[in-house]
Amino acid sequence: MSQTNGQLINGQWTVESTVPTFRPHWPLMDKAGDTAYACATDAQIEQAVSCAQQSFAALRGTSAEERAALLDTIADNLLVLGEPLIALTHRETGLPVERLTGERMRTVNQLRLFAQALREGFPQDEVVAADPGRQPLPLPGLRMTHLPLGPVAVFGASNFPYAFSTAGGDTASALAAGCPVVHKAHPAHPGTNAMVADAIVAALRNHDLPAGAFNLLQGNTPEVSHHLVRQDAIKAVGFTGSLAVAEALRKTLNQRDEPIPLYAELGSVNPQWVLPGMPDEEVAELTRQLCQSMLMGYGQFCTSPGVWLVPAGQIETVFEQARIVLDKAPACALLTPGILHSYQQQTDVLALNPQLSQVARNHSDNPAQPYAQLLATDVHALIENPRLLDEVFGPTALIAGYRCTEDMLALVAALPGQLTSSVHGDAQAIAAHREVIDALQYKVGRLIYNQMPTGVELSRAMHHGGPYPASSDVRSTSVGTHAMLRFLRPLCIQNEPLSD
Amino acid sequence: MSQTNGQLINGQWTVESTVPTFRPHWPLMDKAGDTAYACATDAQIEQAVSCAQQSFAALRGTSAEERAALLDTIADNLLVLGEPLIALTHRETGLPVERLTGERMRTVNQLRLFAQALREGFPQDEVVAADPGRQPLPLPGLRMTHLPLGPVAVFGASNFPYAFSTAGGDTASALAAGCPVVHKAHPAHPGTNAMVADAIVAALRNHDLPAGAFNLLQGNTPEVSHHLVRQDAIKAVGFTGSLAVAEALRKTLNQRDEPIPLYAELGSVNPQWVLPGMPDEEVAELTRQLCQSMLMGYGQFCTSPGVWLVPAGQIETVFEQARIVLDKAPACALLTPGILHSYQQQTDVLALNPQLSQVARNHSDNPAQPYAQLLATDVHALIENPRLLDEVFGPTALIAGYRCTEDMLALVAALPGQLTSSVHGDAQAIAAHREVIDALQYKVGRLIYNQMPTGVELSRAMHHGGPYPASSDVRSTSVGTHAMLRFLRPLCIQNEPLSD
Repeated sequence: MSQTNGQLINGQWTVESTVPTFRPHWPLMDKAGDTAYACATDAQIEQAVSCAQQSFAALRGTSAEERAALLDTIADNLLVLGEPLIALTHRETGLPVERLTGERMRTVNQLRLFAQALREGFPQDEVVAADPGRQPLPLPGLRMTHLPLGPVAVFGASNFPYAFSTAGGDTASALAAGCPVVHKAHPAHPGTNAMVADAIVAALRNHDLPAGAFNLLQGNTPEVSHHLVRQDAIKAVGFTGSLAVAEALRKTLNQRDEPIPLYAELGSVNPQWVLPGMPDEEVAELTRQLCQSMLMGYGQFCTSPGVWLVPAGQIETVFEQARIVLDKAPACALLTPGILHSYQQQTDVLALNPQLSQVARNHSDNPAQPYAQLLATDVHALIENPRLLDEVFGPTALIAGYRCTEDMLALVAALPGQLTSSVHGDAQAIAAHREVIDALQYKVGRLIYNQMPTGVELSRAMHHGGPYPASSDVRSTSVGTHAMLRFLRPLCIQNEPLSD
Repeated sequence: MSQTNGQLINGQWTVESTVPTFRPHWPLMDKAGDTAYACATDAQIEQAVSCAQQSFAALRGTSAEERAALLDTIADNLLVLGEPLIALTHRETGLPVERLTGERMRTVNQLRLFAQALREGFPQDEVVAADPGRQPLPLPGLRMTHLPLGPVAVFGASNFPYAFSTAGGDTASALAAGCPVVHKAHPAHPGTNAMVADAIVAALRNHDLPAGAFNLLQGNTPEVSHHLVRQDAIKAVGFTGSLAVAEALRKTLNQRDEPIPLYAELGSVNPQWVLPGMPDEEVAELTRQLCQSMLMGYGQFCTSPGVWLVPAGQIETVFEQARIVLDKAPACALLTPGILHSYQQQTDVLALNPQLSQVARNHSDNPAQPYAQLLATDVHALIENPRLLDEVFGPTALIAGYRCTEDMLALVAALPGQLTSSVHGDAQAIAAHREVIDALQYKVGRLIYNQMPTGVELSRAMHHGGPYPASSDVRSTSVGTHAMLRFLRPLCIQNEPLSD
């Protein structure tokens, strides 16, 4: 077994020959990959955390410009990995080469976004000048600045092998903040993780920073994850994945003496509201866009439009267009056998529900490539059975007809927390539904007008999160400049001597 | 029993005649107060939360100016309560009238600080304009704004009957954010809580806001507190008090389906570092100031200087001055019988420790008014026995001699999280100890140069919190403008139609 199929700790690839190994599933070939990877042992996990802790003083001692330069070098190194990285990830995830090339560029841009933010002085200090003449007592000078929290555990996602994985948003924002990272890689694409981890450590070396500021742990068992977040030196957790896994991690975190933040970005059904009054041809065009948005990533984006609310009188228009689009859409493999299994279980349950009927689907004769489908229902079915508002991770969406504003308000009240929701309609329709939209704001992290939920801008005004269970911390975003704030905390310096 | 000795729910005083009651202890007279107060029942707690939830839509629908006006009216009403409020609080807490008059003014100023921040547009939206020409895809307009979390449970403290109680920083910042409040009042001063609660509800009525936006629950048992934070509609908890109580609340919060933030501001020993090279007469003057700071609130401020680090060669100078100051200092009653009991237990343990010796004390022949004391030890005793770094809530401080920078670095490494720490020395001494001070930053919420830790400015640059166990959420402050952010969360609005 090659060393690089083990753990990357303090810049050294290490593998224990006696430990369990795992092989990723290659979805397009529907077979196990040709390389086995070793699961991290408890001792290796502890060593990785210890190395991260030891690198903290050097990393927090860097200037913003030095961290910006580090992020730029990681971005450059990702591009240098070239086609071999894309080809390996394509094998490991089954995602199209074009999509992967785009996602890598997004990941590069994300690293550069944080570099730019650091150069622009983000986050700014709050400064209040001394006022020796204040009555009844002088006002001391106060400066509120920010310090990094310490070593961060980052959990990669299966559905974005670059943007939410090894060098993804959590790692980029943690390093930008000055926090060392111990990365528990997603076992769906271990080879990708290893190549990217090497690129990160090379960048650290290039900038004379300790290699222990980034460590990679592989594993396909919960034990690795739980042992990692139990470590006292870990001061925050970044996670992208399923609610069930996040809940299990939360239980372990609750056992710690010191409470630390868990930033888990989960999922949601991202309700799409077609407001009344839209001409039928616009409803048809919107339906085409919603189908494409759902088929993007084959329903495996956390912002996939999973529930569409349509005026009951126009629902047949939606069905008709959806049939045309889906009929021609190719079936795709899902990311992992586990996701396929869960998806089949969920869709089997939905198929038995008398309140749902299938109105459109594509075609597949390969059981590893499930068909995409749209199921029709009524808004009252969703209100009465909130389990229908649980995310289905895969290419299934529900279309529900509504009759009146009261229907809409009742559904908003029944909604669990959402990452996003889109409202589709002209200015008049929007004005007429202000009460619905105002209530909807309190259920979502991002409210979108007349655009698809998929596609999350890298921006200082982005918020990618939302009320539970869309995320575990409604105050935090996993995308955009403010993601860095998750790994910083304020420090007030009082009566600071003037520097020379 | 008078109705006002029960709960204030939705603007109505209600009392269940069959429930347990409690009487506060009047410390100066060392006897039970003349009024009994009823403990809130489970049904009353649920009703209070339900009323808070029902008021949320109205409160979140207010403009920043409307909330600012509400806070100003609450401030005015506190002043209108005049001398009768001060006299009642003086009986309930034993705190001097002058101190209480000052603390009420601080509380008034705190309400006005949040009003001013709202009028200044705090917190600002992040706005990124649309760029239809961006390649490869147009950039949609993005605006990141803030929404209130929902009903907040606020727990009052015993040691600040105004500033950290009914209309204190947690209530003021929650209402400023647009969050309704259910206030679990501290049982040490129930009459004060009731008068202040009436003033808040009068202000709500004055501004045509629902009275249910503020509710008061009395009780002297843990059950009231735990049943309150269990309620699903509660979306955040503000708490000021002891680590033990906060830990118990955290365990209950961990049982909830939805994780919500617990903002517990706890305590610490606030280490005071006398750097080498200070002339003896300055060390003597600094010792006088440290004694006064510790005697302020008779050691019952969370920022009380509890551990002083002094160059070993100057420790006798400190002892000598401390003896002079303490010898003349009057003994005082502690706030509650519970605090007195805990303080006696802790000081009894310290008295048995052979690594400690008493070097200064004042005099008291009243067991309800314990003497203040300074205990001498060595920095290595603190490093080897970190329990000596636990907060003693009352008038005891430890003075430890150190010999070298290595001693200082080792103690910083052993320190648990602190609210504050002060460094005393001239520019040369500070420059020579940059490594110690840099490391110290990572253990504190506020780093102070050449000033006492007591006295927390109301400012947008203040941070009053700190690494665990100084607070349960290192990212949050309970004092200053940014305290409002605890009860807000971001919302991104994408492609928002231009308003008329």
